[in-house]
Amino acid sequence: MKKETILIALGGNALIRKGQIGTVAEQFENLKIPVRQIAKLSETYKIIITHGNGPQVGNLLLQQECCNAVPQLPLEILVAQTQGQIGYMIESTLDSELMELGITQYFITLITYVVVDENDPGFANPSKPIGPVYTEAEAKTVPYPTRKTAKGYRRVVVSPEPVTVVEKNEIRKLIDMDFIVICCGGGGIPVIREERRFHGVDAVIDKDLVSAKLAEEVGVDIFLIATDVPGAILNYGKPEEQLLRSLRLEDATRYLKEGHFPPGSMGPKVDAAMRFIRNRGKRTVITSIDAIEAAVAGAAGTEVLA
Amino acid sequence: MKKETILIALGGNALIRKGQIGTVAEQFENLKIPVRQIAKLSETYKIIITHGNGPQVGNLLLQQECCNAVPQLPLEILVAQTQGQIGYMIESTLDSELMELGITQYFITLITYVVVDENDPGFANPSKPIGPVYTEAEAKTVPYPTRKTAKGYRRVVVSPEPVTVVEKNEIRKLIDMDFIVICCGGGGIPVIREERRFHGVDAVIDKDLVSAKLAEEVGVDIFLIATDVPGAILNYGKPEEQLLRSLRLEDATRYLKEGHFPPGSMGPKVDAAMRFIRNRGKRTVITSIDAIEAAVAGAAGTEVLA
Repeated sequence: MKKETILIALGGNALIRKGQIGTVAEQFENLKIPVRQIAKLSETYKIIITHGNGPQVGNLLLQQECCNAVPQLPLEILVAQTQGQIGYMIESTLDSELMELGITQYFITLITYVVVDENDPGFANPSKPIGPVYTEAEAKTVPYPTRKTAKGYRRVVVSPEPVTVVEKNEIRKLIDMDFIVICCGGGGIPVIREERRFHGVDAVIDKDLVSAKLAEEVGVDIFLIATDVPGAILNYGKPEEQLLRSLRLEDATRYLKEGHFPPGSMGPKVDAAMRFIRNRGKRTVITSIDAIEAAVAGAAGTEVLA
Repeated sequence: MKKETILIALGGNALIRKGQIGTVAEQFENLKIPVRQIAKLSETYKIIITHGNGPQVGNLLLQQECCNAVPQLPLEILVAQTQGQIGYMIESTLDSELMELGITQYFITLITYVVVDENDPGFANPSKPIGPVYTEAEAKTVPYPTRKTAKGYRRVVVSPEPVTVVEKNEIRKLIDMDFIVICCGGGGIPVIREERRFHGVDAVIDKDLVSAKLAEEVGVDIFLIATDVPGAILNYGKPEEQLLRSLRLEDATRYLKEGHFPPGSMGPKVDAAMRFIRNRGKRTVITSIDAIEAAVAGAAGTEVLA
């Protein structure tokens, strides 16, 4: 029987947990939890892994702003740097976990860039949270736009919509050959196409929306979003909070409007899952980092249904 | 007829030329020269591209040392970041050049890590130049080891020998499928293997030596090293300087001893070419960035012969 393909989008907490500053040792230790599950799943499924880069790209941006000894780099180059950094960390952890489990697989990490539309309204409105979390008082003192998110105040940068993943044909071919593919790190490197050339743009794309686009373009069977909560939750953080084990498109639209799934947090995840289902995707589930295997088995997380 | 495979190792001047500070615009502009030639060669040959990262990894290191707002990262993570950064720049330039030439190819940039020996004597003796060039007076004031190179004084870091490229099987398979592969950026991310796990080490591997290792492990037909001079030169910089169009192993050994090919400059290139030929490699040539096509045709550069 032909193996089904799962695309697993890893959230930032796969690398840095609440209250950690994010040393390299912490990030490698945290990665074992999702990656061990993925290593096991690779015996039954073809696998694509995507990942965020919020804290890492935020750190690079802060670092170059506080040091003027070297040329400043635009955001798309910093995203490319985080693809190398996090891709290596995920791949070498996967390598170790597969060795420990005695599983042999081909696997690679791919630098990925993603076309955006130069007329995207996102260019006029910084919306994507990156970097450290600030208190309200701190947020008033930093020299760049911030926004209140579920975690606290964070810097926001320009974030256009993904139009297409440039390497989609390569990724499809690699999946056909049973490679585990790590790609679209940090939402992909944003580029615009002008006639016969690509140009990077100073922005960051949302990794869940890119993952939905890639899931559609590759035609995966299961699109799984792994984050720091067990799934889509109504009245999150209140006494009456309620995990939804399934969520129909029409209800999701209503809950989004009612503010149950805030922007920069659960909002883009539900949005991404809805896009995949609307574009004839078979199955999508939002779950926590430690329940990836259970969610694939149907025993955890929120399934978004047509 | 089966296409032959060329591995092209791009030197730092493919991205940053003498006298430039290395803005992103400069690096993209410089890349067009080697990459256009490589795009044309891809119609006749299978292609692997490797590249250095000296100035880029030096910049990241300087930057994090001058800013303590974020966690410091070890060298192997900075190498991973430059693989993302430079890999993206090469790949998107290749993409544009192929489009302009109307050539269709599959191509990807691969994060690559390379095993080193934890008992390598290199760990006791920093030897690999990275970062900016200093005057002798400046070199005395910086808080890290420096060494005089052909270009001036530069910071030196630990640089162990490459033992094996971890992704060699993946790269071989990709070449079989006619993918153009960009890999081993900055000499690869150095790791040691402890039983069933990999651990990164705080070091940088020489990109020419890794390229020779990969050329051998993949079994390429031509190993080409592209740099900022036309080839191996006797009495470089003196009135009687002489470009060698061919160089036998025994002569190369003698010239190395006599100091014609200095460490951190032409030395590792001649060393890498000699290793490839000693390990039964078919053909290797050292040439300048703008003469890659001519060198493949046998009309430029230095061929190292058995």
